[in-house]
Amino acid sequence: MTQASYIWYQNELLPRQAVQISPDDRGYYFGDGLYEVFRVYHGVVFEAAGHFDRLERTAKALRIPLPFSRSVMEEKLQELIRLNDVQTGNIYLQITRGIAARSHPFPAYAEPVLMAYAYPYERPLEAMRHGISAVTGEDIRWLRCDLKTLNLLPNVMAKQEALDRGADEVILHRSGTVTECSASNVMIVKNGILRTHPANHLILHGITRYVVLGLARELGIPVIEEPFTLEALGQADEAFVTGTTVEITPIIRIDDRPVGNGAPGPIVQQLQTAFDTAISSR
Amino acid sequence: MTQASYIWYQNELLPRQAVQISPDDRGYYFGDGLYEVFRVYHGVVFEAAGHFDRLERTAKALRIPLPFSRSVMEEKLQELIRLNDVQTGNIYLQITRGIAARSHPFPAYAEPVLMAYAYPYERPLEAMRHGISAVTGEDIRWLRCDLKTLNLLPNVMAKQEALDRGADEVILHRSGTVTECSASNVMIVKNGILRTHPANHLILHGITRYVVLGLARELGIPVIEEPFTLEALGQADEAFVTGTTVEITPIIRIDDRPVGNGAPGPIVQQLQTAFDTAISSR
Repeated sequence: MTQASYIWYQNELLPRQAVQISPDDRGYYFGDGLYEVFRVYHGVVFEAAGHFDRLERTAKALRIPLPFSRSVMEEKLQELIRLNDVQTGNIYLQITRGIAARSHPFPAYAEPVLMAYAYPYERPLEAMRHGISAVTGEDIRWLRCDLKTLNLLPNVMAKQEALDRGADEVILHRSGTVTECSASNVMIVKNGILRTHPANHLILHGITRYVVLGLARELGIPVIEEPFTLEALGQADEAFVTGTTVEITPIIRIDDRPVGNGAPGPIVQQLQTAFDTAISSR
Repeated sequence: MTQASYIWYQNELLPRQAVQISPDDRGYYFGDGLYEVFRVYHGVVFEAAGHFDRLERTAKALRIPLPFSRSVMEEKLQELIRLNDVQTGNIYLQITRGIAARSHPFPAYAEPVLMAYAYPYERPLEAMRHGISAVTGEDIRWLRCDLKTLNLLPNVMAKQEALDRGADEVILHRSGTVTECSASNVMIVKNGILRTHPANHLILHGITRYVVLGLARELGIPVIEEPFTLEALGQADEAFVTGTTVEITPIIRIDDRPVGNGAPGPIVQQLQTAFDTAISSR
């Protein structure tokens, strides 16, 4: 990954090496904060409104006041894109509750700490074309997976376990009901019908998930937002993940068995084509 | 809280204001790390072995290699106690997986980052004598609460909710089965029998919890380590929390109803006396 050369930190645009965090930042002690990863195409933030809506929703749930208005943040992100000369890339933005001596309760007075940077990041064309492999694993995360917080250790451990088992991703399930992946949403196709877990407290409400469901409806593909089982996953004709950086990536093997005929299927390819058009047209 | 004047950071003893964290520390991005809070009485770490055992167990589960041997850590903690002139106090120690560009999988190469400091912290004599109030709330945490990790946002939110509801602590439950509190273990007494949740994956294996259960057995108090319900909690003769900094603190009100006769009961007082002796004799 190419490093960002400039970081927006505490309302200053600083060279990366100049940014240092307080050891008393509650992000460091408790993971007490939230984040977003924005996608940049053609030098512009893609689906910015969706990301900002989610940022605001998480901030409200965690009761962390946002230090800047949406328009100021949008302006700064665009400045980061320009400064780091990003055409296709990502923007990472996180906000913690602030700096205070370590104690669980919210501090009486603390200013939220914002850090954001942009960096070039290519589209994962190879994986999108040929597909990835996945394993299944237990979802042991907390019951507010809809919040995009800095408490990501279970996701980190799950992702690493997938890699250790020779796969690219892990499809998580709670007692046999599929939720999502370690860092992406998961969808299946059976007999032409698209299925994915509903956007409740058990999954992240992925922006790409929304975009894909919208494209499916436009294409006349029936969509069912209901939980499905590991068994249904095993019998799916197609399976794929959606996410800001993975876009729409087919899953061609699950737990060492091929999905469908073991190659990206027609519906995922149809959605990829529609997504390409969506990117280009903005 | 009195601030520590010296911090042990990356194998150096530094003045507090000299310590600054990398924005790429995985502790900051993911809460990808672990911690311990050690208690100091008479200038010496209390139950050091128990804390180090737990530290090693968590590190192993998270696959974070400990950067120092136990004897080196013990030596450094004693140096921190001396430098900060701590008689009665706490030591905070945390270790993250290290510094790397943000990406979920374990970095190919990263050195764990250790930070530790000692500070004076008095015994909570007032709360121990008169008791505290608690509310009950849902336990929505992940399913590895036995690991002492930096993913503490659910605990932070639960604690703050307790304070907002006018209480000192929150007693968490999963579908009516009591687990523990936001930052302490919970025990009840009914008809002379002590009950507490077993030390499995749903609760932190508190060092003070172990000490108290040992003292209870020495005192001939029957102990049952089995889950109990909210209903049993509501009918308890006594209830109390245990923890490194709260020691043994009676709960005298739960959800605005008195526990027993609304004052610390005989068994909690007996345990407090035995704990005082345990502290003094080391």
